[in-house]
Amino acid sequence: MKCAFKAANASAALRNTIHALCATITLSAAICLRAFTAHAEATSALPSWNNGAAKQAIIDFVARVTIPASPSFVPPAERIATFDNDGTLWPEQPMYFQLLFALHRVKELAPQHPEWKTKEPFASLLKGDVKGALSGGERAILEIVTATHTGMTTEEFEGHVRQWIETAKHPTTQQLYTTMVYQPMLELLQYLRANGFKTFIVSGGGIEFMRPWVEQVYGIPPEQVIGSGIRVKYEVRAGKPVLIRLPEIDFINDKAGKPVGIHSRIGRRPIAAFGNSDGDLEMLQWTTSGKRPGFALFIHHTDAEREWSYDRESKVGRLDKGLAEAAAKGWTVVDIKRDWRVIYKRKS
Amino acid sequence: MKCAFKAANASAALRNTIHALCATITLSAAICLRAFTAHAEATSALPSWNNGAAKQAIIDFVARVTIPASPSFVPPAERIATFDNDGTLWPEQPMYFQLLFALHRVKELAPQHPEWKTKEPFASLLKGDVKGALSGGERAILEIVTATHTGMTTEEFEGHVRQWIETAKHPTTQQLYTTMVYQPMLELLQYLRANGFKTFIVSGGGIEFMRPWVEQVYGIPPEQVIGSGIRVKYEVRAGKPVLIRLPEIDFINDKAGKPVGIHSRIGRRPIAAFGNSDGDLEMLQWTTSGKRPGFALFIHHTDAEREWSYDRESKVGRLDKGLAEAAAKGWTVVDIKRDWRVIYKRKS
Repeated sequence: MKCAFKAANASAALRNTIHALCATITLSAAICLRAFTAHAEATSALPSWNNGAAKQAIIDFVARVTIPASPSFVPPAERIATFDNDGTLWPEQPMYFQLLFALHRVKELAPQHPEWKTKEPFASLLKGDVKGALSGGERAILEIVTATHTGMTTEEFEGHVRQWIETAKHPTTQQLYTTMVYQPMLELLQYLRANGFKTFIVSGGGIEFMRPWVEQVYGIPPEQVIGSGIRVKYEVRAGKPVLIRLPEIDFINDKAGKPVGIHSRIGRRPIAAFGNSDGDLEMLQWTTSGKRPGFALFIHHTDAEREWSYDRESKVGRLDKGLAEAAAKGWTVVDIKRDWRVIYKRKS
Repeated sequence: MKCAFKAANASAALRNTIHALCATITLSAAICLRAFTAHAEATSALPSWNNGAAKQAIIDFVARVTIPASPSFVPPAERIATFDNDGTLWPEQPMYFQLLFALHRVKELAPQHPEWKTKEPFASLLKGDVKGALSGGERAILEIVTATHTGMTTEEFEGHVRQWIETAKHPTTQQLYTTMVYQPMLELLQYLRANGFKTFIVSGGGIEFMRPWVEQVYGIPPEQVIGSGIRVKYEVRAGKPVLIRLPEIDFINDKAGKPVGIHSRIGRRPIAAFGNSDGDLEMLQWTTSGKRPGFALFIHHTDAEREWSYDRESKVGRLDKGLAEAAAKGWTVVDIKRDWRVIYKRKS
């Protein structure tokens, strides 16, 4: 847009004011035009999102940080977006899928461990009593993790994960887990990447449980996955270097561990963060308290019919403090029932 | 190239053989042609490298993994290259530059610590007796690191690093440290990236000491830096989330720690690794023992006139076992005096 107003007869001060005004109008028009285009692009890019406040907030934020003339413009290298996995990119009911993997491994390993028949938490697990097994609390979980996730090379563990993810079915839907990823979130990942964002997973789940399949399923490469991890040790066995998985926790990437993991692994503060539980709260706080604009979004599981409905009282993925803080700070909350047109990945 | 040979009168078997032969010749010609082009590109891309075995080995490896028809072709996403920093991308004499930063911080902090006048290792340091200070071994180093690297927020520490790197001069060259980075290695980083590689720093040095400046100096973003680190803790102070640097070592990214750090942070095995000391040996072993082709290179400091000359007996950056293993396994060894036309970054 060119400013065609002839300011020849105006005083110098007035001329300057008019020029400044023209420049502002030109800039605003450019932003408007780009925002309008961005809106059209986004609508076609997020087809599984119903029109509403959540979708609009995403589109507005992306426009704000990507339009070069915008005062909130963020250079592409700094457009870091972090996503929780369980409950955010795929479900976490009736229990974390990694726990279902561990239970599967316990059954596979049982013939080599006759003592498990009478030893908890394995005895209960082998009878199908998951609740009883987990009544042992953190110690029981640690025993299950140690038995199923350690004492082998990293390549062997990866093989077990691959085999399970390619064949195991979810207990209630009877679908492959990788088909149960959320279609609206796949579109969101793609939309952000198309707008120059680098997308990371920042999950409380095991980093090596996710890496074998997330690149194919979410388009997120292994080096952009942050998760909880156990210690590994470098050894040369029969002339061949291997990494051995030790029965020791290295890092728990949950709650206040998420900003720590993000800082340690990425070294930049995200400008957008997506979660669904109180375990993501600190990540959202960290993301929204930098110098750059920060976008925070919680997914609220509200659709018992198409998926699951749970929040403040849930043992898995509790969302309680997070809902309160989102309301207080004006963060975006996705109501699945209202905001998502479809739930699971479209069949290709 | 089309195979114009008329096989009409030949037997079917002969015809098949001829067709196979033609296909092979066509493929070989394509590889040859691409290798030739790659060679020409590389020669112009690595102007500070003298022609010789080291440069040739780099060019040959890159051609092998990037030519689509090559049996050793590696898809771009898996072209991970890892670089040590001290002694590989910039010097490490007369001592690690991070130690010089720490000594600078001790002097800056001394007025707040009158007790340091009589307390080792600080008393020796403040008298300029670095050797005496470091005679306390690991404990002395840990005390210096704790005093200069912890007890502050991550943003405060970053500020100290930035201030130092922008102003401090090297004790013998009197140059800014960022001008002492190796020109041939800058060209190599660029050459690999132009060929689809993702370049990472994998250093024994502090990750947060490197991140503030390596993107500008090496073109390597913070999320592609792996280093040693101290623990940090998330806290909300006066309503503002901060990360506090604690006086506890989190991870030492050296020797057998390098493959561990690579696995934990990248989650893929590199196909090329570059180092200069025995601290890099395990990284080179790990890189060359996967299913993919793996390239390993040691830089041998042989040029006392233009830089420094040291190897088997050096206290800093000792290269002893590494030289033996490189010879045994046919790894590439750069002789700086012979292979590098210039040493430090060209002034732009």
